[in-house]
Amino acid sequence: MISAEKLTLYELAAADRAVRFSPHCWKVRMALAHKGLEAETIPWRFTEKEQIAFSGSRTVPVLVHDQHPRGDRATGDPAISSEVISDSWRIALYLEERFPDRPPLFGGAGSIPLSEFINSWADTALLPSLARIILVDIYKHIHERDREYFRTTREKAFGKSLEDVVADRDAHLAALKQVLSPVRRALRNRDFICGATPAYADYCVFGMFMWVRCISGFDPLEANDPVSTWRDRTLDAFGGLARSAAVAD
Amino acid sequence: MISAEKLTLYELAAADRAVRFSPHCWKVRMALAHKGLEAETIPWRFTEKEQIAFSGSRTVPVLVHDQHPRGDRATGDPAISSEVISDSWRIALYLEERFPDRPPLFGGAGSIPLSEFINSWADTALLPSLARIILVDIYKHIHERDREYFRTTREKAFGKSLEDVVADRDAHLAALKQVLSPVRRALRNRDFICGATPAYADYCVFGMFMWVRCISGFDPLEANDPVSTWRDRTLDAFGGLARSAAVAD
Repeated sequence: MISAEKLTLYELAAADRAVRFSPHCWKVRMALAHKGLEAETIPWRFTEKEQIAFSGSRTVPVLVHDQHPRGDRATGDPAISSEVISDSWRIALYLEERFPDRPPLFGGAGSIPLSEFINSWADTALLPSLARIILVDIYKHIHERDREYFRTTREKAFGKSLEDVVADRDAHLAALKQVLSPVRRALRNRDFICGATPAYADYCVFGMFMWVRCISGFDPLEANDPVSTWRDRTLDAFGGLARSAAVAD
Repeated sequence: MISAEKLTLYELAAADRAVRFSPHCWKVRMALAHKGLEAETIPWRFTEKEQIAFSGSRTVPVLVHDQHPRGDRATGDPAISSEVISDSWRIALYLEERFPDRPPLFGGAGSIPLSEFINSWADTALLPSLARIILVDIYKHIHERDREYFRTTREKAFGKSLEDVVADRDAHLAALKQVLSPVRRALRNRDFICGATPAYADYCVFGMFMWVRCISGFDPLEANDPVSTWRDRTLDAFGGLARSAAVAD
């Protein structure tokens, strides 16, 4: 990226603003690293709807891509174009389209629909399965003023109290193990879901594990699970970007 | 394919040998049609292990690809090469590699790992979910001499009787609806899982619905489900190949 461009990413933060735990924001963080792009990250909390109202979205991630007229944006020139993209999937497509000379997030156009399926699987199967394990941990670590919002929206979604959702951890761990079967199988023949190196479909799944890692002290994977080995490899990618991320106490 | 080549596909058959109901064999049938290839299909039943012993596999699909020295195999020349491939995934890779000038099953090398993930998802999430609905229907329609084998192996896998597995159909239908979420989401933006036209990942999922269609009178999808609309489109592909397939009475 030439210095006339600037990327800004609004990320969900815990009570400790250094802790960025949204699975969807982690998809974007990994995608930016994959593309070799730097972004200023701005902590955002669930109830700060007004701070991102400019995006038309009520949730993060929100990415702002400013382009300045001269090479040195320190001159204070206003941006001549400013694009605002919300939703991690749309952000990934945007990055792929706008930075085509950087390493590809998708292995060609044919891979985009297939990656979207895997993203949808992560969101609709893996996310709820992990939520049943960490929902109360999230509640404990988010900012005090986010708690009522979080409890109300999640208890409505699950149809029971947060505490009741996570009550039977052993059953949820057994269900998770089954949910992860396609990942485990896919990793029999290769190091990453996308092949010899990770790409966007890996980050879609990995984001879910960063969500757990950043907000909960509990590890839902057994050490000998191939999914755990894959997670280790992805934690080490890009100089250990994800491994060095702040986690909640 | 030049006339010097011959493909033979061993397929699982019901009591009525015209009924070919294996989800994995249907993946191959669709892949062959996609490539514009014809194959002689040979009905096979669960307990006929000896008939396919030459393949080293105990299950179908098994594909045999014979090449004859001259253009006209009717001369009775023995095949100069005969390749035997079992397992639907390996067959798909084989067809892609051996018939590269035909329409691609995968949209480039980057799509192969992603398609394998979707195949694994179909096998480990969708298949068991549908099995909980149709297991007794399968038992009723397979050949009498296959029944004991089927009951024994499936009851061991599920840890209960076939009748107990399918007992709570309403709960299984609700679970299926949730399992299908990634397919439904993927179809929001396109006609097929793979994009504007179907490819191998579509057939991996579609094979599961052909399994149900051929062996059970029950349709687990609601008519207004986008998955049902996609299934209709795929039933119509290749001149209605799948729609015209024999189904059990």
